Formats: sequence, C-alpha cells, structure tokens
Amino acid sequence: MKLTILGCYSATPQIHTNPTAQVLAIKNHTFLIDCGEGTQVELRRNKVKFGRIKHIFISHLHGDHCFGLAGLISTFRLLTREADLHIYAPKGLKEVITLQMKLSNSWTNFKLIFHELSATSSELIFEDDKVEVYTIPLDHRIYTNGFLFKEKLGERKLDMNAVLNANIDVAYYRKLKQGSDVPDNSGNMVDNASVTLDPKPPKSYAFCSDTAYNESILPIINGVDALYHESTFIEKNESLALPTKHSTAKQAATIAKKANVGQLILGHYSTRYDDLSVFKTEAASIFPNVELAKDGKTFEF
Amino acid sequence: MKLTILGCYSATPQIHTNPTAQVLAIKNHTFLIDCGEGTQVELRRNKVKFGRIKHIFISHLHGDHCFGLAGLISTFRLLTREADLHIYAPKGLKEVITLQMKLSNSWTNFKLIFHELSATSSELIFEDDKVEVYTIPLDHRIYTNGFLFKEKLGERKLDMNAVLNANIDVAYYRKLKQGSDVPDNSGNMVDNASVTLDPKPPKSYAFCSDTAYNESILPIINGVDALYHESTFIEKNESLALPTKHSTAKQAATIAKKANVGQLILGHYSTRYDDLSVFKTEAASIFPNVELAKDGKTFEF
Repeated sequence: MKLTILGCYSATPQIHTNPTAQVLAIKNHTFLIDCGEGTQVELRRNKVKFGRIKHIFISHLHGDHCFGLAGLISTFRLLTREADLHIYAPKGLKEVITLQMKLSNSWTNFKLIFHELSATSSELIFEDDKVEVYTIPLDHRIYTNGFLFKEKLGERKLDMNAVLNANIDVAYYRKLKQGSDVPDNSGNMVDNASVTLDPKPPKSYAFCSDTAYNESILPIINGVDALYHESTFIEKNESLALPTKHSTAKQAATIAKKANVGQLILGHYSTRYDDLSVFKTEAASIFPNVELAKDGKTFEF
Repeated sequence: MKLTILGCYSATPQIHTNPTAQVLAIKNHTFLIDCGEGTQVELRRNKVKFGRIKHIFISHLHGDHCFGLAGLISTFRLLTREADLHIYAPKGLKEVITLQMKLSNSWTNFKLIFHELSATSSELIFEDDKVEVYTIPLDHRIYTNGFLFKEKLGERKLDMNAVLNANIDVAYYRKLKQGSDVPDNSGNMVDNASVTLDPKPPKSYAFCSDTAYNESILPIINGVDALYHESTFIEKNESLALPTKHSTAKQAATIAKKANVGQLILGHYSTRYDDLSVFKTEAASIFPNVELAKDGKTFEF
C-alpha cells in the first residue's frame, strides 16, 4: 500500500500548502481521498495518472475537502475519459456537481456514479475480491466520514517442496491456495496446512479527517497498519479545537495508542503554525511511531 | 489602470498555467475578472490584498472561469471579512454558491450580493462617480459576457497662473473644476476655458473571453485603450475554433483593428501550444500593437 499526500493543510489553499487530498495505491486500485481546490494540479505534480482514478472518497462537504472535484471531473471530460467514475460522498454533492454541469452545459461522456452517504454507523461502501472500504463516522461540525481501506486476506502460498514431495497433481494447486485439503496421486487426502504457508497478513489504512476527539471510532480502526488522523491544533490551542470540532496532536496520538495502530500520520494542520515539529513532539510523547504528513510525501506500509 | 493577469490559459489548470482570472486596478477599485480554480493562490502570489476586492465579474459558467469562486468566498469568510462582496455573473451561479454554502453550513458574515445577468444586449451593471462597467454580449457555447471598464471624464484642471491673474476667489475653485464660469473679485464673469485645462482623457479596458469571431461587439468596444481578446487557437487550427466558439489570434487582431483599439492583449490559449510566439506573429500581421498575456504579467495603460 502506498499513500501519497497531495495536500494536508486545513482551511485555505496557499502558495506552498494545499488543502486535503490523498492518493492511496492499494492492490490494483488508485483511490483518491478528498479533493480540495488544486487537487488536479497536485495529481499532475505527483505524476498520478488521471485514468487510474476510478473511485473518489469524499469525507465531508467543507470546501477544503471537495472544492477541487468539479474541476477534476471537468478535466476528465476534456481528456475524453470513458471509464466509469464512482464518487462516495455525503448526500448533497451529487446535486452540486449536477447543477454545475447543467449550468455549464458540460455533461460527461463517461458514467458518473454517485454513492450518497448518510448512515451514521460504519458501513461497507466498496468491495471487490481484494479490497474492502468502510466508512468511519466522525464527529465534526457537519456530517463527516473517515474511511477504512482493508486488503482482504490473500490466498495461501504453496510450499513447493512439500507439494512436490506429497505427489499432488498440478490440477489441485488452485484448491490448495484456496485452503482446501486435496488428494495426492494415490488418492490419499493431504492436509492443506502441511503443504501451504499462510498468506501475507492483509494491510489496512484508516483516514480520519476532520474530527473532534472521538473514542467511538476505536473499534473500527483497531489494529490498522497506518492511521492518518487530523491534528489541526496543538494542545495549547485546544480551546480552538473544541468549538471547531477538530483534534490536537495529543488527542490524535491518544486515539492511535488506544487503537493499537502500527503507525500514526498527522495532518490537516492549521496554517497558523510555521513550525510543525511541535506536532510530532507532542504526539510522540504518547505514541512514538508518528510521522508528519507533508504535501508530496509518500508513505509505504 | 493596471491589469494583472492571474491566469490566461483555457480549459484545465496545470502546474505552470492557470485558467482565466485577472485583476484590474481602476481608480480606487480592485476588480476581479473571472475566477478559475486556483485564483486565490494566484492572488496571494501576486500580492493582491483580498480585502481590496469588492466586485467580482464572471463572464460565464464554464469551470475554467468560475470554479475558484466558491473557495475564494470561503477564504474571505475565514479571514473574517466584513465588507460587502458584489458578484456580477450569469443567472445560476448564485444557486450553486448558495447550495455549496448550505451543504457545508458555512454562511458568510459579510453580505454576498449577486447581480444575476441574463440580458443579451450591453447593459450598465456598475457605476460610481469615477467608473462605469458595461457588459459585452459574446458569442460562445453558453451565455457569456465580456466586460467594458470605463473611467468617467474627470474634473477640469486649474491653470493656476491664469486663475491667479484673473483674481478669482478660492471659494470658486470647486465650480471652476466642474466647468462653470465664475465671477472675479470685481464681479466680472470669467470664461471657464480661459483659466482651466482639459482633464486627462478617461481610459477604458475591454475584456472579451470566451467568444467566436463576433463583429457585433465592435460598437461597444470601439476606441478602448486596451482590449483583452481570447485567442484559443491559431489560424491553422481554425477548424477547432469554429465548433467550440472560440477565436484565432488572427480573428482577435481583426476585431482589434476594426474597433480601433489602442492595444491588443491576447490570451486564453489552448494548452496544446508549447510556443506562444506564433500567436503574436499572427496577430501582429494585422494589428501591430499586440502583446501576449502571461500569468503574473501586468499591463499599465
């Protein structure tokens, strides 16, 4: 899994800082997560192929998380895209985008499929044979979801020496990978576990922006390999975090610790801070394996 | 009058090229003309003070001319703006922006005043004691206006030597500037023209993007000091200009020549061209006083 940060600042785009957008490469997918103004330029800067994006996940309808979407769709149209585009977003975005296309008389040739979200408990919103995506209901000023991206458990791996020693016909390899016991060439059943190895443990990534400190997400994100959690403020500005329903670095680290995650990635910084190192220091005192998101930075896990 | 080009390319924002937006400083106003995605960042890059912008003119509702507006309004809100903001735009934009504010529950504290345009002949849309703004109906795929910005004729200037020689009391200076004849200290009337000078001729600027070749705009823009006219294509790609209702550099120059303008500024280039010098060469063969718009370039007239 590879995560590319296109933008990780809150509020307004500035010359060197972009509002929220991320690209997650997971199995054969390139998922776009949030789409603040300027996202299409950051996609170009980070050399993400536009045609690879088939699913876009929008956390909420504050502008710094979605104002780049209409332009991106418009660019897809100009690039004569044909592939379907799925957009998972709070109810309402479909109405805005449709109105913008109507007023500009710029309808897409490709299918634009909106999956409107309104549930307040976690739900499975995407699934194929390798990946699942669930919503993570967050606590913000308006209806907001984070997203949990999970690889599915892969097939078992053949232990080729054991398989050959057991005299199993190649026609049974597929069933072995699927976990079944199979007969050997003499018709005796072979225990699957004796000739196969466990698959690689599936990875998972949780994106949580924007939210107040919210322990109700712990069961959903428990044990993820990486957690992106917003930290708009540091602890000394907690009085700003409370009314705006944002988190401090310390709160993000507390969530990471309680959820037993592998790695914490902080982001969604207020542009009031010139030096971000204090976010890392503050979080590390509670959860040591913490990194700062930065526009253009990538994380592999 | 000082014009700052924030963006002068058509279609999609790219790493080094921005969609249409301009700032016109005229008398005590800072007018924003069109607002493609990324305009707020270009305003910062060009050090335009956000608080100075009180009037925004939107030519049409294609994304490359208006997708930056919702974000700019949102930023004004975050900057705790209090001053009224006037937006002159085709009917429909108010509905989009209002819907976006409703869905994000982000209403402005300042007054947002939409002047919805739908007339198909030129109309006066802004006027104060020093400036007038008229629409210029253009011929594009959707309802589109250019804008004519005109200084009003200023007051007459006092010829101080003549005024003193004529023994005119200082109480009459105001009336002299306004063009009236006034009495001297002996009660004899003094001819205004004998003691005052003509005011500086008022300047005018016409913004015409996007449009097919359209001679019906000639009477409206006749004699302007500077004309920005779109030239999305060059003549050899005229077959692309026709169905998309855009102009070639040659057509823009022909309009400039027939309208007797002082200076022509070309822009709204298709991003297919790596070398823009051919636009200038092509236009200059018909209208020599031509310049190429470039993001970040300023023009004074």
